[in-house]
Amino acid sequence: MQSQLISATKQIIHLTKNDENILLKLFVHKHFSKGDYFLKEGQVCKFVGFIEKGLIRYFINKDGEDAIYNFGKENDFVCNYESFLDHSASNKNIQCIEDTLMLVCSYDNLQEIYTSLSEGQKWGRLVCENLFVNAIKQITSLYTAAPEKRYREFLEFYPDLQQRIPQYYISSYVGVKPQSLSRIRKRLSDN
Amino acid sequence: MQSQLISATKQIIHLTKNDENILLKLFVHKHFSKGDYFLKEGQVCKFVGFIEKGLIRYFINKDGEDAIYNFGKENDFVCNYESFLDHSASNKNIQCIEDTLMLVCSYDNLQEIYTSLSEGQKWGRLVCENLFVNAIKQITSLYTAAPEKRYREFLEFYPDLQQRIPQYYISSYVGVKPQSLSRIRKRLSDN
Repeated sequence: MQSQLISATKQIIHLTKNDENILLKLFVHKHFSKGDYFLKEGQVCKFVGFIEKGLIRYFINKDGEDAIYNFGKENDFVCNYESFLDHSASNKNIQCIEDTLMLVCSYDNLQEIYTSLSEGQKWGRLVCENLFVNAIKQITSLYTAAPEKRYREFLEFYPDLQQRIPQYYISSYVGVKPQSLSRIRKRLSDN
Repeated sequence: MQSQLISATKQIIHLTKNDENILLKLFVHKHFSKGDYFLKEGQVCKFVGFIEKGLIRYFINKDGEDAIYNFGKENDFVCNYESFLDHSASNKNIQCIEDTLMLVCSYDNLQEIYTSLSEGQKWGRLVCENLFVNAIKQITSLYTAAPEKRYREFLEFYPDLQQRIPQYYISSYVGVKPQSLSRIRKRLSDN
């Protein structure tokens, strides 16, 4: 069976057999148990991950409360890219909310991929664009959107994840208490 | 005199003479008067800009008020990259706060640069990383940081811009009324 990473990469660039071998050498498997952190606030993000199986949440501390701003699932790349690029302390957390199997790649190995793959720089640009567009949309929404809009966005962004994500995480993403989420749901289903 | 765009580009990739000619053909001059918008909320961002001379502000509407989350000055690239990449309506505004001379490049021309320059993809990746790291740091700070921290960040990010940016824009960036900004300043100078 072809690696999911190879399949996903082939959707954005052309891969030679040699390119495939480089990717599979420089991304290594890592297992996380449910509750394990991929990255904790204050740490430097040292890896880019690619989820083969599992589910993660991204969250940030806002006035002492955790605010979830994103989820990641199978075939998603995982990173706090601004910490990874700058080697700076992360102000965000990334935690596995299911047992999760990832392929992870260090900063130095990623640079090697950029220069060794026939279309490595293009791949880097496209993955970077994808990670960042996602992150910035989510953070902007967290800052500006009202709870009901946030809940509609949750349904839109993660239509296949509703059964896998606990209710209190959905509430945190929406930015309300669980009781308020029930009211939002009722209002939307009444309309 | 060498174009600023060429000098800035040479700091991140190697440019042949042919590469320089491609860049100077595909980026074209555009003049904006003080107050003109590079991008208005609701529009699709159709250009990447490079500031040769001038100053811009990025702002977003939060509960009916404008919140400034970033400034751009000479030698900075200018874009709402998520709108530019997705061809989606922007939820952010970019406005010139001085008469501003830019070099601008359309989406199609940017794709041509990626494929035509000897290190076009690498350049694209690095410019993308830079634009996004900046944007995401600023939006995250807007969401999480207390006013005094925001003011310290302003001084850190824009040490050379204090004289060029009107006080009410600095207040908006910090997220307080002008009177409160004076109190923050006094407190910091007393310490």
